[in-house]
This record gives sequence, structure tokens and C-alpha cells, in this order.
Amino acid sequence: MGMVGGGSDGFIGAVHRSAAFVDNQIELVCGCFSVDPEISLSSGRSYYLPESRIYRDYHEMFENEVKLPEGERMDFVTIVTPNKWHFEPAMMALDRGFHVVVDKPMTFSLDEAKQLRKKVEETGLILALTHVYSGYPAVKEAKERIAAGELGNLRRIYVEYSQGWLSERIELLGGNNAGWRTDPKRSGKAGSVGDIGTHAWHLSEYISGLKVTELCADLKAFAPGRPIDDDAAALLHYEKGVVGTLTCTQIAAGEENRLSIRVYGEKGGLEWNQEEPNTLYLKWTNRPKEIIRTGNNSFSGNLSKYNSRTPGGHPEGFIESFANIYRNFADTLRAAKNGVKPAPQALDFPTVHDGVRGLQFIETMVESGYNNKQKWQKWID
Amino acid sequence: MGMVGGGSDGFIGAVHRSAAFVDNQIELVCGCFSVDPEISLSSGRSYYLPESRIYRDYHEMFENEVKLPEGERMDFVTIVTPNKWHFEPAMMALDRGFHVVVDKPMTFSLDEAKQLRKKVEETGLILALTHVYSGYPAVKEAKERIAAGELGNLRRIYVEYSQGWLSERIELLGGNNAGWRTDPKRSGKAGSVGDIGTHAWHLSEYISGLKVTELCADLKAFAPGRPIDDDAAALLHYEKGVVGTLTCTQIAAGEENRLSIRVYGEKGGLEWNQEEPNTLYLKWTNRPKEIIRTGNNSFSGNLSKYNSRTPGGHPEGFIESFANIYRNFADTLRAAKNGVKPAPQALDFPTVHDGVRGLQFIETMVESGYNNKQKWQKWID
Amino acid sequence: MGMVGGGSDGFIGAVHRSAAFVDNQIELVCGCFSVDPEISLSSGRSYYLPESRIYRDYHEMFENEVKLPEGERMDFVTIVTPNKWHFEPAMMALDRGFHVVVDKPMTFSLDEAKQLRKKVEETGLILALTHVYSGYPAVKEAKERIAAGELGNLRRIYVEYSQGWLSERIELLGGNNAGWRTDPKRSGKAGSVGDIGTHAWHLSEYISGLKVTELCADLKAFAPGRPIDDDAAALLHYEKGVVGTLTCTQIAAGEENRLSIRVYGEKGGLEWNQEEPNTLYLKWTNRPKEIIRTGNNSFSGNLSKYNSRTPGGHPEGFIESFANIYRNFADTLRAAKNGVKPAPQALDFPTVHDGVRGLQFIETMVESGYNNKQKWQKWID
Amino acid sequence: MGMVGGGSDGFIGAVHRSAAFVDNQIELVCGCFSVDPEISLSSGRSYYLPESRIYRDYHEMFENEVKLPEGERMDFVTIVTPNKWHFEPAMMALDRGFHVVVDKPMTFSLDEAKQLRKKVEETGLILALTHVYSGYPAVKEAKERIAAGELGNLRRIYVEYSQGWLSERIELLGGNNAGWRTDPKRSGKAGSVGDIGTHAWHLSEYISGLKVTELCADLKAFAPGRPIDDDAAALLHYEKGVVGTLTCTQIAAGEENRLSIRVYGEKGGLEWNQEEPNTLYLKWTNRPKEIIRTGNNSFSGNLSKYNSRTPGGHPEGFIESFANIYRNFADTLRAAKNGVKPAPQALDFPTVHDGVRGLQFIETMVESGYNNKQKWQKWID
Repeated sequence: MGMVGGGSDGFIGAVHRSAAFVDNQIELVCGCFSVDPEISLSSGRSYYLPESRIYRDYHEMFENEVKLPEGERMDFVTIVTPNKWHFEPAMMALDRGFHVVVDKPMTFSLDEAKQLRKKVEETGLILALTHVYSGYPAVKEAKERIAAGELGNLRRIYVEYSQGWLSERIELLGGNNAGWRTDPKRSGKAGSVGDIGTHAWHLSEYISGLKVTELCADLKAFAPGRPIDDDAAALLHYEKGVVGTLTCTQIAAGEENRLSIRVYGEKGGLEWNQEEPNTLYLKWTNRPKEIIRTGNNSFSGNLSKYNSRTPGGHPEGFIESFANIYRNFADTLRAAKNGVKPAPQALDFPTVHDGVRGLQFIETMVESGYNNKQKWQKWID
Repeated sequence: MGMVGGGSDGFIGAVHRSAAFVDNQIELVCGCFSVDPEISLSSGRSYYLPESRIYRDYHEMFENEVKLPEGERMDFVTIVTPNKWHFEPAMMALDRGFHVVVDKPMTFSLDEAKQLRKKVEETGLILALTHVYSGYPAVKEAKERIAAGELGNLRRIYVEYSQGWLSERIELLGGNNAGWRTDPKRSGKAGSVGDIGTHAWHLSEYISGLKVTELCADLKAFAPGRPIDDDAAALLHYEKGVVGTLTCTQIAAGEENRLSIRVYGEKGGLEWNQEEPNTLYLKWTNRPKEIIRTGNNSFSGNLSKYNSRTPGGHPEGFIESFANIYRNFADTLRAAKNGVKPAPQALDFPTVHDGVRGLQFIETMVESGYNNKQKWQKWID
Repeated sequence: MGMVGGGSDGFIGAVHRSAAFVDNQIELVCGCFSVDPEISLSSGRSYYLPESRIYRDYHEMFENEVKLPEGERMDFVTIVTPNKWHFEPAMMALDRGFHVVVDKPMTFSLDEAKQLRKKVEETGLILALTHVYSGYPAVKEAKERIAAGELGNLRRIYVEYSQGWLSERIELLGGNNAGWRTDPKRSGKAGSVGDIGTHAWHLSEYISGLKVTELCADLKAFAPGRPIDDDAAALLHYEKGVVGTLTCTQIAAGEENRLSIRVYGEKGGLEWNQEEPNTLYLKWTNRPKEIIRTGNNSFSGNLSKYNSRTPGGHPEGFIESFANIYRNFADTLRAAKNGVKPAPQALDFPTVHDGVRGLQFIETMVESGYNNKQKWQKWID
Repeated sequence: MGMVGGGSDGFIGAVHRSAAFVDNQIELVCGCFSVDPEISLSSGRSYYLPESRIYRDYHEMFENEVKLPEGERMDFVTIVTPNKWHFEPAMMALDRGFHVVVDKPMTFSLDEAKQLRKKVEETGLILALTHVYSGYPAVKEAKERIAAGELGNLRRIYVEYSQGWLSERIELLGGNNAGWRTDPKRSGKAGSVGDIGTHAWHLSEYISGLKVTELCADLKAFAPGRPIDDDAAALLHYEKGVVGTLTCTQIAAGEENRLSIRVYGEKGGLEWNQEEPNTLYLKWTNRPKEIIRTGNNSFSGNLSKYNSRTPGGHPEGFIESFANIYRNFADTLRAAKNGVKPAPQALDFPTVHDGVRGLQFIETMVESGYNNKQKWQKWID
């Protein structure tokens, strides 16, 4: 694994590395960890890399790595930069035959996303998108219960992602992760909608197996002077007559990382909350509520069992969820290298198609919800 | 207290009676408990009433009671019939000088609500509307914390009322409370919106101290053939730039009576869930979350303390919440009889004005949300 | 109903009254509400009693009431005084043909308890002991599930009652309920063990259907200078080889009224916490945990259904639990008056036999646990 | 890192490896993974090891590794075998200059533990004992809050470790982890007391900073024919007059891995539950309860912050807790190799001294609790 971004001054890069290492099948071999070559160098050293594999910019990295013999050069690159700098390194990597892991949203714009999809399809390489929350075992159990028809035909979905850390304009202080996220030049058309709304939307489609067809949104920037939304809500219509609400906000003062989802069908409902991720509640019209727990014998799904690492009552967390995406991606990549068909469970990670739909979600939300244009907007394709 | 409705074949009448009795200051003296005179009679007997005060219809009741000497005749009437039969007995009562307690929504239509308001204003009598959830001590604490500015200027409100008992068309079975609720001829323009959406809306205005100014709604009947909404969601705009979402559904399979609200301001947020009504969560940007509990020394408000009956850790429930409305109404009524000004805390119960706004809420939701008309609708006045 | 104790300066008397009134079948007709005749008088007036039925002492009350015609005189007396003054009024009441409700522990000493039992047996009158926590619907559901064998043979019981309100010697401040509770002359041999430990013990026997056979206790007074235990723990042996732990403490700083119990058998376990009394957790070796909720269709027992007053999701609290004891007692009393056999569910309230066992529990705990009489093993180094 | 035990047929070895890898500073270089050389070989291959470093027995491993040049040979060995085979490999490793990580209980007997302590002291090498639960950030926060005096002088401790997986004699089925744990020849004098009781005891001493001085225990084997305790409870006396209860059971049917602790002092209490490990509850006599959460700004301690890896609301789990022990051990080891003093936070891991006390705990519990040696008081009738 090579890395673009992920210097020691950030947070998410460290999570990507820990997640990649957990299963002892991915090794960090090179990286360009910052736009600042000094930070890249010091970061790379602290990650135990030789200086020859710590690069000053990603052009240099791709040019150099591609010349190394197979087995020595990186197999894939992980891109954990601000949104503005996802597209170019991803395209360069694919052009040189490297597989790609990239953080969400996949690109800065829908147009870039479609180009990237075209490139992936042309090259036949693998692109994984780290919608990490779909990696939790209990989320997979929810998906599999619904797919098995346990809830009957679905009717209503609630999905919410609430944070409070942008209640004030901390981006003006510098030295934190708020800067690029609240800057439309680096983040894209949307703020909270792109940063966390895409996770909420993706989770709802992943679990329900249904696609959003139209929505009516209300976007707003509450922090004075912030040039991009920090709060949004939408009414949703999914396929098959299912209705939903989605909210994503970063000004919910006092909330940490409250991503939660509920799905109701004709026969029952289910509920999952990311902050206590090992519990899945099942609710029934005709029998007691049930508590399904990660790792114990209450799991019924193949994917949920496959992506659980410890016995019941030994909590699995955010890093393990991330690790599931890396492991499944790595298993798929290894199968590709070996010329064999990957196991079905290996293919369970978000791809370039999720990435394109994510940018479509952003476009649709912004079209419907910004500037008080509120009206029902068909999904922008 | 006299009673219209509340026969022994229903549920909510029994709650009204228990709530009225808890404080030993209200006595049931008469009633017409059912449109079926036999049920009215057997009910009245089981409530230990003499036959002379058990009436066959409410016309008879009002005509007879008004002739009885003061002290013997009822002081007020409680109306717990289906919505269609709120207006007429309420008007008759007021015309004869009786105060009124009426269940929500106050009337069948907005027009009736406005007539009732006019009558209350003309007669100077007291009308209490049993939006029971505003009677909980922790709800009052939430209201008082916000009024004191603890959260700073408000920004976002989530309010939700989810039930699952109408997931199927149990109204076709008969013998339950679903019949009139799902029949537009007895319930009014709206189903779930009127039955529980009004509670959610009222709770949000009661706690926040803010009024809804416009909304965009999505109403739907999921149960096949049901002629009225059993599910609704709306994006809301409140005064002062506050945004909100409201959902009310009776097809959330497996949910019991999940009314919950969260309010976020610049400095913090709060959360309350009716199914565990003695806990209020406060969340802060700059210090740990706090758990405020009914009856212990963590309460800071006057109303919350006044409306709490047992020490911390001795749970108060639905009946006590109802009892608070009855007690405060009775205290106001007694003050009126004695010609003195009621204490401020006695006036803390929903009135005819809440009733009119409730019908406006129904009208606005229906106008915006039915028949896929979805668009933002200004509050209908 | 007549009342001994329960003046407007106390707390538990008000709960007894509300609980008695909820079902509209018990009326307060007289009382001696305080040792202070002024307080008794002002209390009685505030309870809407005529002065002729407000008594200066309970001797006067019993002597006077017994002379009134049946139908006018009280049917039973409720005794809510400090422990020291339970026995005498109870004996006087029984001697004059009045039934009795008395708060726990039933008497000041085991000897008194046995005398009272003898008197009850001789007179054939009814004595109810208000172990209120056995009145909760979910507690009854737990009892009935175990009795039906759902958990298999029982193995281990945890029962705990933790409060924090006596962390400091607030009894020295006066004007609160701590005074007599921490005074051996008014409370009896034990402090926390008598006041709350008896509830914990009773709950464990009520739910499990098993009796404690031996125990090893550790009692202590933590607040400096307090002459009686404010903290206790015990290892328990129940019948049929079941083991248990019981703790009761009033110096668990920050706790409100944390009474909780867990029972494990061969096939599963159950858990109930008084502070959220409408939820019962069932846990199984071979299937998911279940959440059983008061009032909804997840209840399977006769007693649990009979003692639930509102539909699922409409919380029932402490007063309703108390009311169940009063209602069942009143139903039994009415059957006795009518010369008929009470319905089985009417007999579901604690009696004089629970009262005797409660005093035995206190004696056993004190014998084992005070003054470091327990055998301890020094740490082996 | 070399490994003794941890074949692919077990569970805890995988956790040790993931925990070691998370921070990219520990590499698996060799191992003897099973008493069965075939399993050792296949396991080692699946861990990407060359065959030259996969050993058939640990004697061979130590003999071979010690001959390899520094930098190539392992720096330390991790021992994750059944208790019976902790002592010998640990002694061999220390004798050859290898540092040691060993699972708990440290040895089979107290005598072995003392010999090992002597060896560690003689060699100056480092031994880490994986009492994993002391690695959780919220546990460290609890420890630091108490050490800072926030609760005042301590009074009462509750610690409990309940599992249900040994409710039946699954050890008779074979093919699971129950076999050696329930066999006194491989597990030691105690079953549940050694396997999980030691964790509970250690956690209570780690958090409170106090040592147990005496106890009174009750041990029992519930599963028919099981030759060793599967359930235990004890009353505890700690230093400074603090009392406690400890229970550990593996027959609490339906429980997963319920390790929880509460500590009460003069001013407040705290509560932590391993199954939701990122939440610490603080309770106060004079202000609202607080919810302290891993990773957000509610942490006040140095150790708690240092051992947290992700921002608030991104759950950390069992593997991260384990990883903290490995990281701190590795930092200490690196400092030792570099001849510098380790940072204070690096020394925060359990050592050989905890290991000796753990065996003393087992001895004391067995001495007091087995064979009904405890003094019991018969129920007084």
C-alpha cells in the first residue's frame, strides 16, 4: 500500500493505516503524506519507511513506483486527501495500473466521478470507496435481515447523521480538520451534505437495498458567515413506494458522531446507532423486541458473521469496521492477481458506482435545498 | 366533573378519570359515557355513580345538570369522544356555564375550532386541552432550560411520534380504537397527523417557545385501502430561523408510543423520549453530557419541580402527566370560582388557543402533503 | 380509609393516598396525620376532611370510628408512621375489627411481628404490607415467567438497592425523612437493611418463588457517627441450591433509587431495574435477548396483564405500582365483606407473613453482619 | 514478536496479533502456534511466516531464535497457551534474554508466579500481563478521576464479570475453548475465578488504587459434574475501610461478557460497563449525572487521552484496548533497548507484580470459598 495524504498532523490517515494493518496482509511501503514535503518526510519516517519511498509529491510517487519491480512496488494506493485532490491521483494511479482506495465523497464533482467510473471500467482495476459505516457487522446483519424479507415490504426509513463540532466557526482558528471541509473550493458544492450526508444516504441504500428516486431538501449554514451548508434535512422517496427522512448536521451542539438508522416494513422494524455499533434492535408487530449483538449466536447473516472478529460482548469499533473494507478489498485484489474469482463476501465493499451515486446525491440535495429553492427534485443522473 | 364519552369499553376515559382522581380534588358526579345508553348505564354504575346522574345522551345531561344546585351539579365536563363529537358538547357546556376539558384535536375542523375559541372568549370560561405530553415534569424542565437561554439561540428541532399499531388495517376487525381514527367522517381531514402529529407539533412549540411558520409535508396511507394518512413527515420552519423535522407515523411496525424530541441551540442540545419520561439529556459543546432526572435535585425549573410528585428514582408516568393537566386546570378553576388570580403555575395547561393552532397544523399539513402536492406551505391562519 | 401518619410534611403518605384514589374505589374518610395535633388538623383540612374526622391521636380515632355506623366508619386503616409506631395502631385496629394496610418493615421487632401475625390469624382480618416494588407489572411478569419454568431451574440471583441520599449525615439538619430512619430507637435494629434491604430481599423471594435459607452479611455505617448501618452486602443461599448476592446501601453517592434484580437459570436470565420499570429484559442461551414491555402484547402472564393500566409505551410508575397493592387489597376486602371468595389476582399483595419474614431478614442480617462477626480470610501472601 | 500458542484454531491469539499490528511497530517474526506441529505449521503459513521461523515446539523456538543476530531474532515472545503452559516458556524466554507478554492468570500456581517474579527481577527484563480491560481509555479516565480525588474518599466497590457460555457442559463436546478452562489439570485451582474473576479483581484494584485485604467467598460448580467452579461471589475488604462485592460467573445464561464496575466515594460515584466501553458515567451528590465519552473533550486524564485513538463518537473496542497494552509495552521495551527512561505513560501496563497478586487472589478465593468453608448464619426463625 502506498498513501496520498495521511500525514501525522491528520486523523483519518492513521485510521486507514491501523485498519489496513489489523489483518497482517497489507503493508505500508511508500507514500506522499502531505503537500508539505517536510511533513511528508517526517510522517513517513515515523511510519518506519525508508526515505527512498517517502515522496515529495504524488506525481513523483506514481512515476517512481511504477518503475519498481512487481512485489516491491506498491499494489494499490490509498487516497486520504481533501475532496479536491481525490480525482487527479486516482486517475494517475489507475493509468499506471495501481488499484485505488479513496475516501468519500469520491471526487470534487459529479463530472469527475463519471470520468473516474469510465477509467475504472476501462482499466478493469479495483476501486474501493471507504464508506466505513457499511463495514460494521451489525449493519451487514441489518442488510441481510431485510434482504431475507424478515421485515416484509419496506415502508419508511429514518436516517440521521448529527455532529456538533462545527457549531462555531472553528475553521477560522486553523490547525484542525474544519478548514477544507467548510471551504467550497476544496470541499465541493456541499459541506455537511458531502462530508456526512453522503454516509447517511449510502447507509440507507446499503441496508435497505433500495435507491432514492427523488427528494425535497432544506440546506442551511447556521454558523455566521460560513459559505457552505452545515445543516440539511430532506424528505426522500425510495424505489417501491418507500418514504424516508434524512438529516445531516454539524451544528447539533453536543452530539459526537450520531449516525443512526431505522427501517420499518410491514412486519417489523430495525434500529442501529453507530455510537453503540454492536447492537441491532429488531422490533416486531407480533412478538417481543429483540437485541441482536455482534459476534454472538444471534447473528443470522453470512456477511455479518464474516465481518465480525471477536466473540459476543467483546466490542468491535470504528477501526475494525474500516478494516473490514480493507480486508475485503485486499481479498478481491488478491483474487484478481491470482486470476481467480473472488469469494462473494470479498466483493462486499463500496465501489466506484457508489461513488458516482454519492456525487449525484450531493447534486440533487444542493439543487433542491439551497437558496430556499425547496421543491421535490428528481434524482440527478 | 361530568363526562361525555369514556365508557368502560374504551381506554382513554379511564386515564382521564384516574388522572382526575389522583389529587383527591376532583370527583366524578355524572356522565354520558357512550352513544349506547346501555353501555353508558353499565359504565356509570361501575364508576359508583347513582343512576340519576348517568345520562343517555349529553343533551339530557347538560339540561339536567344545569338545573341542579351549585355544589351539587358538575363544575366542568370532560369530553373524550371521537373528534367529530367534540364541538357540539363543548359548545353546549359553555353555553350553560360549564367549564370544559376536551381531548385533542380540539374539534373536527378549523372552522369549529375558531367558533369554540370565540365562545370561550365570550363566556370567560376555562377550556383545557389534554395535550398530555406537555404535562411531564421533564418536558417542563426542557422548556424552562431553553427559556432561560441555556442552549443559546435555537437552531434545529427534531420531533417524532412513531407508533406501529396501525401497521395493518385492524380497523376492519372492529372492537378497537382504530375504527373512528381511520375514518375521515369521524376523525377529520387527517389520520396520523391529527391523532399523534398534533401532539408532536404541540410538544415542539411548547418546549421551544417558537411557532411554526411554514412547512413542507409528505403524507401517505400505507395500509392498503385506508382512506386517510397513517404516515407523515415534514420539514419545518419555525420563527427566528429555526429549522425542524417532524414525523408522525402509525405504521412503524414494532414501535409502541415513541414520542421523542431533540432541540439544538448554539451552546448545546437536549433530548427527551416519552417512553422513558423521567430522563432529560443535556448535551454541551464544552462540557460533559448531563442526565437530568425527574424529582431529584438536578431539576432547576419552577414548573418542572411543581409538576413532580415523587422523589428522584421513583418513576412518574403517563397518568401523573395527565394528572398535572387536571390539577393545574382545577387550581385555575378554583381560583376563578373564588374570584382570585390563579398562581402562575396553575395556568400551565393547554388552552383553546393551542386547540386552534392544532387544527391549523392539520390544515397546513394536509394542504402541503396530501396527494403529492408537496411544496412549502405557509402556516394557514 | 382512615390514616395514621401521612401529614402534609411527609412524602410517603401522599403516595399512599394517590395510590388509593386512582381507581375511585377508596375514599379517605378520617385520619390522625401527625403526632402534632396542629399538623394533623391542617393536613386533614387540606385533604378535604371534615374536622370531626380529623383526630388528635390514633387512640381517639379508633375509639370514635368504631362507634360510627358501618358504611360511614372507615373500613380499614393505613399506617404510614415511623417503624416504632406500626405495631400499636395495627393491633388496636385489628382489635376493633378494622383491616390494616401498613408500610414496611411491618414492625419494630421480630417479636412484635409475630404477635401481629397471631392477631391477624385470630381475627381473620386482612393485613396488607406495602412492599410497593412487587406491584409493578413487569415484576409480576418476571415472577410468572420463572414460575412457568421459562428459565429452567434457577441458579443465581443478584439483587441490589442503592441510594445515595444518606451519603452525609443529613439527619443532623432536621426537617427531612432521614431523622427516624437513622435512629435505632425509632427505626429498629437496622438502618439501610430495614429501610431498603427488606425491599430487595422481598423482591428476590417474590420473583424467584424461593426462600433465603442462610446468608453471610457485612454491615457498616459509613457516615461518621451514624449509630446504625447505612450500607450492607450479603452472600445468600436460597432453597434448591440457588445462590445470590444482596446489597443495600444509602451511601452510594449519586444514586437515586436503584433497585434492580437479575435472576439466572439453566436456560436464560432476566433483568429488571426499578428506575425504568416498564422494561423487562429476557436473555437466552440459544436465541436473541428480548425486551418485554409493560402493557404491550409481549406480556404473557395473568398477573402482569391484570396489573397494567395503560397500553404499551404509556409509562406506568411508582404510584400505579402502589395503586395495584391498594386495588388488590380492596378487591380482597370487598370479597370478604360480600362473603365471597376473592379472585386469585386479588390475593396478589404482601401480607402479614411477608412482614414476619421481613423482620427475620433484618435479624439475620444484623446477627451475621454487624460488628465484624463474619468469618473473613486474610489475604494470603 | 514470537508467539507460543495462538494457532488458527483459537480465538485469543488472533486478538493478540491484531492488537500488536495496529500501530505498525510490532511484527510477527516467528512462532510455535500449537502443540500439534501440523497446526503450528499451517497457522504460521497463514500468518505469512517463512517455514524456517515456524517451530514445532517452543524449546526449539527459543534455542533457534537466540542464535539469530539481533535485529533478526524476535525481541519478545507472547505466550497465549492454557494456564498450565505459561510458566515454562516464560522462564525459558527470560533465561535467554527475551522479554515476555503473557496472558492471565500469569501461571498455574502461586508458587510458579513467585518464581517468575524472581526471574524477572534478576534479569531486568520486561514482562507484560494482558489484563486487557485495564487498557480501555474510559477505564483509565475512571482511575485518574479517582486518583485526583473527585469522588472523595472511597467507600464501596461493585465489580462483576458475568458470562453465560458455560451454562452447559460444552467442554464435553470438544472443539471449543471450554476444555482446558474447566479442567483443573490445565487451568489451575480455579475455573471462573481464574479465568474471569482475576480480571474483575484486577480492574477493581487498577481503578480504585486500593488493594483487597480480606474476603469471604462462595464458590460453586453449577453444571452437573464440572470439577471446578463456574460461579463465585465474594464480600471484599479493601484498604482504607472500603468494602466491596465481586461476582464472577460463567453460568449467567444469556450474558455475553458483562464486566462492569461501580465505585462510590463520599462525593460521587462512577460506573463503567465493558460491553459499551466508551461511556463512563459519573454521578454526584450535588449536581447532575455526567456522561464521559472516550475521545471527546470530556476526558480529563493524561492516560485516558493517551490511550484513545479516534475522536469522540468513533467507537474504540476490545482490540484497541489490547493494542494499548502492546503499544505501551513496546514503548517501554524500545526505551530499554535505547537505554533511556520510558515515558510515564509507557509504563501503564500490568506487570509480573499484578501477576503474583492475581494468583494470590485465586488462592484466597479458593481457600475461603470452596467446600462451604465460609461461616454462614442459619436463617433465624
